[in-house]
This record gives sequence, structure tokens and C-alpha cells, in this order.
Amino acid sequence: MNMLVDGEWRTDAYETTNEDGEFDRQDTTFRDRIEDDPDARFQPEAGRYHLYVSYACPWAHRTLLVRALKGLEDAISVDVVDPFRDEDGWQFTPEKAGCDADSLYDADYLRELYVEADPDATCRVTVPVLWDKREETIVNNESEEILRMLDTEFDEVAERDVDLYPEGYRDEVDRIIDDIYEPINNGVYRAGFAKSQSAYDEAVTELFDALDHWDEVLADQRYLAGDRLTEADICMFTTLVRFDQVYHTHFMCNHQYIREYDNLWPYLRDLYQTPGVAETVNMDHIKEHYYTTHPDVTPSRIVAMGPDLDFAAAHDRDELPGEPPAALFQTA
Amino acid sequence: MNMLVDGEWRTDAYETTNEDGEFDRQDTTFRDRIEDDPDARFQPEAGRYHLYVSYACPWAHRTLLVRALKGLEDAISVDVVDPFRDEDGWQFTPEKAGCDADSLYDADYLRELYVEADPDATCRVTVPVLWDKREETIVNNESEEILRMLDTEFDEVAERDVDLYPEGYRDEVDRIIDDIYEPINNGVYRAGFAKSQSAYDEAVTELFDALDHWDEVLADQRYLAGDRLTEADICMFTTLVRFDQVYHTHFMCNHQYIREYDNLWPYLRDLYQTPGVAETVNMDHIKEHYYTTHPDVTPSRIVAMGPDLDFAAAHDRDELPGEPPAALFQTA
Repeated sequence: MNMLVDGEWRTDAYETTNEDGEFDRQDTTFRDRIEDDPDARFQPEAGRYHLYVSYACPWAHRTLLVRALKGLEDAISVDVVDPFRDEDGWQFTPEKAGCDADSLYDADYLRELYVEADPDATCRVTVPVLWDKREETIVNNESEEILRMLDTEFDEVAERDVDLYPEGYRDEVDRIIDDIYEPINNGVYRAGFAKSQSAYDEAVTELFDALDHWDEVLADQRYLAGDRLTEADICMFTTLVRFDQVYHTHFMCNHQYIREYDNLWPYLRDLYQTPGVAETVNMDHIKEHYYTTHPDVTPSRIVAMGPDLDFAAAHDRDELPGEPPAALFQTA
Repeated sequence: MNMLVDGEWRTDAYETTNEDGEFDRQDTTFRDRIEDDPDARFQPEAGRYHLYVSYACPWAHRTLLVRALKGLEDAISVDVVDPFRDEDGWQFTPEKAGCDADSLYDADYLRELYVEADPDATCRVTVPVLWDKREETIVNNESEEILRMLDTEFDEVAERDVDLYPEGYRDEVDRIIDDIYEPINNGVYRAGFAKSQSAYDEAVTELFDALDHWDEVLADQRYLAGDRLTEADICMFTTLVRFDQVYHTHFMCNHQYIREYDNLWPYLRDLYQTPGVAETVNMDHIKEHYYTTHPDVTPSRIVAMGPDLDFAAAHDRDELPGEPPAALFQTA
């Protein structure tokens, strides 16, 4: 793993596994908050903020989803990096399908933005990045926090009345996001990046135990927190939608496909078919990224064929209590 | 790939892919024949021949299967090598579960037998090896030919009246063995060892086209050649039984599991449940071998969890015309 050390790009500075061969994800470093408060340094405003994302990355995908569901496309601009990441880190390759130039600074590499924000930065260079065009700095690069901010602080700016962290559900949403992070969202990485059999075995066992559990839960309720689409579903979705094509084989999470689950698979299709969601899924970027970017895992950098997945197939989940926010079905 | 060159062990002598990134399997080199003919150099006799095999290897597995089905266990002895193969090649590690010492020469490595057979051998060192204890040499190391010899030349020696190359089916059996070799038996290796995207794409497409074809064929007939269990089924079985646990993920043959096929999966269970077959399947050796022996494919050498496979589940294939040889059900 490569990273910035005192603002210098280093390709040898960082170990991602501990002495037991377990993958250790490092904390992100920019943790400011946008708040709907006149005294706040960062306030919600249309046109002020920018997202740097990769379509490949499940963490960045969360921010694209909340932006799409709330109708923040005009208020918050986005640039998409190249799904292929080599030792120079995420880069801008506008000539490639689905990729953008850096529309703010015309940078070649995402790391340049990190140095722009902090000339002495010592950190990994990750997506998503929530950028403040006014102060020319990174507000935050932690996906869960960006998701929460865009969801709860931008109601005045958003074009759609969509609340993914509704009163009465908040404790449950927080609990679920926390519950699924280690075994599922990060669990696929812990399995795929394990350097010992025991670390892999533990990760993959916890992963499928958790998937089995949520498959059961979803037999009787449409969404993770009950009858409301929430941030918890967004956090689950970005892992599930990648699962059968990449985590299953590339990360050896191969006990079964999501498409073999009685409830997780219809649930995944239900979310995929929710207005605004499908446009955020770029499976070409997803597959290219994983298979070509981790030579420690797949040295050939060959992209696997993968199973057929018909995300548009009927799901019948609308027979369960709950429905997507009505605002998603209103045209502007 | 390592090999013998003029009787010397070399670890740098051999390229397994051509300039298009396609896997090129080299021909085997010992091709003598045992014949039920008084003038033949190698004649079928109980106690004269010995097999060196790996439980992991699908080619060696063919010879174990014909030995078991025909009741040649007492007539032909067997030693099983370690499923883990490093740069020293196949080796004997009797301290390990399911592995044997070399009962003939107490060799440490299989390559010693090749040099014993030919001090100037220039070849890969592979299993199976059919060894003649009398002349102290390798008769043959080509699995298809060993399978045929044990099947057709050992009727006087075999304890069971089982004919896997029956009159009236021979052309069809030869045709099928030839038809399935390149896309299926070798196809999984062509996919897994491909060094270019185009070589992989071609291999995996041909593989699943062929599986789809045979799945259709098996909708209406119990065995590949019709109503008789033949050598063709043995050749198909050793690939299918490994598929979901290793080829699917390790070799990225991940379009679907065999267990998802309507007919191939019951067909596989039917063969597995044929008397004598299950005892030849050592899934621990299979999984350990593939995942730990190809660091170019899986550098972590971690063995994947894999799907649950209930080979003992009912298959209902006995409703189709045909049944296993009656002799398999007679106790001695």
C-alpha cells in the first residue's frame, strides 16, 4: 500500500496486515463536518462542495447513492477516477470510459488534492473525498460520515424530500451500520487480504454467518431497519452489488453467491431497482478495479467472467411492509 | 514449471504459456503399453505393476477410478504423493494424512523414479506413473492410455467384470473423451493459467459452452455415451468433482457452479455414489494442492472455504435408461 508521508508520496511505507496475517484497515484522517448551523465552518450550500469518487469503491459508492437519492446532483459536483490503481494511486484519466478529468485543479493524481489540502499530509489517499471549493480543502474522507452529512444536513439544498436517517429509526440504523461493517463491508477485504489461513478462515466464517443472519431478517421485512429505506441499506448495498462479481472469486468469499440467497438476492434487486440507484452502479469499473489492482491477490490481472446477474428481474419485495420514499417517484 | 533435463532437476527450464498468454500443456513421454498378448513386453499380471498418483490430480484420479471399478486393488499397488508441490516437484511425505512413502524405492521425490527409469530423462515429472516392478521402469505416464490399458487389458486379473469401453460404444467413447478434453478437462487449466485476458476469455467461454452442451445431453441419458458407464464418464468425473471447490474460484471458472446445473450436478452425484468411486475422492488433498501449489495464481497459498456440496444427496438419475455395471454390486 502506498501513502503520503509528510506530503511526499511513498510506495513502501505501509503494511496492511498485522503479525497474525489479519488485514488492518487504517483510519481516515480528514474528519470535519458540514453542519446545517449558521456558526459552523462548513455549511450546506449548493455549488460549494465536490466529491472525488471511484465507481469501483464501495465506500465512495455510498456517497454517490445518497447524492442520487436526495437529488443533490446539481448541488454537489463529482469527478470519477480511473478504476485501475497502480503504485501511483488513484488517478484521473478522462480519456477512459466513465472517467473524468479533475474538474477543479486538472490534477493527474488524487494524491495532489490531498497535498493541496494539507502540504504535510501523512495518510493513505482514498476515495471518497468531500472537497470544499471555497476553502480549497478536504472536509472529510470517511464514507460513513459523508453519507450522514449529505443525508441529514442538506435538506434545504436537496431536490428531493428523502430522509435516510428518520426519527424513530436512528438507533437501529446506527446499530445496523455498526453491526454489518466488520463482518460484511470490511469482512470481504479481511478475507481477500488475509495473509494467513486462520485470518482468512475467521473472516470468511464471520462473513457468511452475518449474511445468513441478514438473509433471515429480510424474510419478514423489506429493509434492514424494517419498513423504511435507510442509510443501513446503502451501506449493505454497495457490498452486496459487488459480491458475486468480485468478492466471491477475487477475495475467495466463495461459500455461495448472493444470487443463491432466498432473501438477500431479491433485496439486492429491490434496492437496485429503486429510482436513482442503477445509474450509480458501473460494473465495468468494479470488475476492472478489483481484478487488475491487487496483484498480490490476482497476479495475472485478468478480469474473471463472473456469473450472470439480472438485477432487473422481478423481486416481489413490495409485498412486504414498506416502500421507497415517495419523492423518488416524483418527476421534477 | 520444473522439469528434468538430461536427468538433472531444473527449476527454470520450462514455459507453460505461449506468446499469446495461452497455457500449453506438454506431452507426456513414457508411452509404452501393457497388452494382453503373449508376445508383448508388458503383459497384464497381478502384482507386477504399481501406480504413483496424487489424489489431487484429475489425471491420476482417472487411474484410481478404473482400478477401483474393475477390482484391481490387490493386483496393482499404489503410492500417493503429497498434495503440496513446491519447486522440488511431487514428493513422498508418509507422515501426512492420506500420503504414502514410496513403497518400492523409499524415494523422497517422484523425480527419482523418473531418473531410475531413464537416467537421461528430459521431461516434466507428472502423475500418474504406471511402474513395472519387474523391469524397474515407467511403462506409461499418460492418464488416458493408462486408463485404457487397465480397462481393456486386465480382464483376466480384475476381480470384477466391469467393461468401461464396451463394444458398440467404442467410437462414441473415443469421440467424447476427445471432445471434452480441450474445453473441459484441459479447459479449466487453460483458464486458470492464462496470462492474457484474451486467452482466459477464450478458454472460459469454451468451457461453459461445453458444460452447457453436456448438461443438455445429460437431460435424456444417464451417462455421456448413453446408457452405459464408460471411460468417458471417468474423464468427465475427475474434472467435475473438483470444479466447485477449486476450478471455480482458484482458476476463475466462475460463471456458475456445477451444483447450479440441472443435469450435470445430479450426474456428478450419481457417479460419486457408484460403488468404489467415493473412496477415490480426497477433497482435502484436492483443495490443499491447488490453492497452495500455484503461487502465480493464489500467492497467499490460502485454501478457500468453497461451497457446501452434498455428493450423497439423492439424484434420481436411475429413472433414466442405464445402470452401473452389475458386478459393482456383488460382494466378493
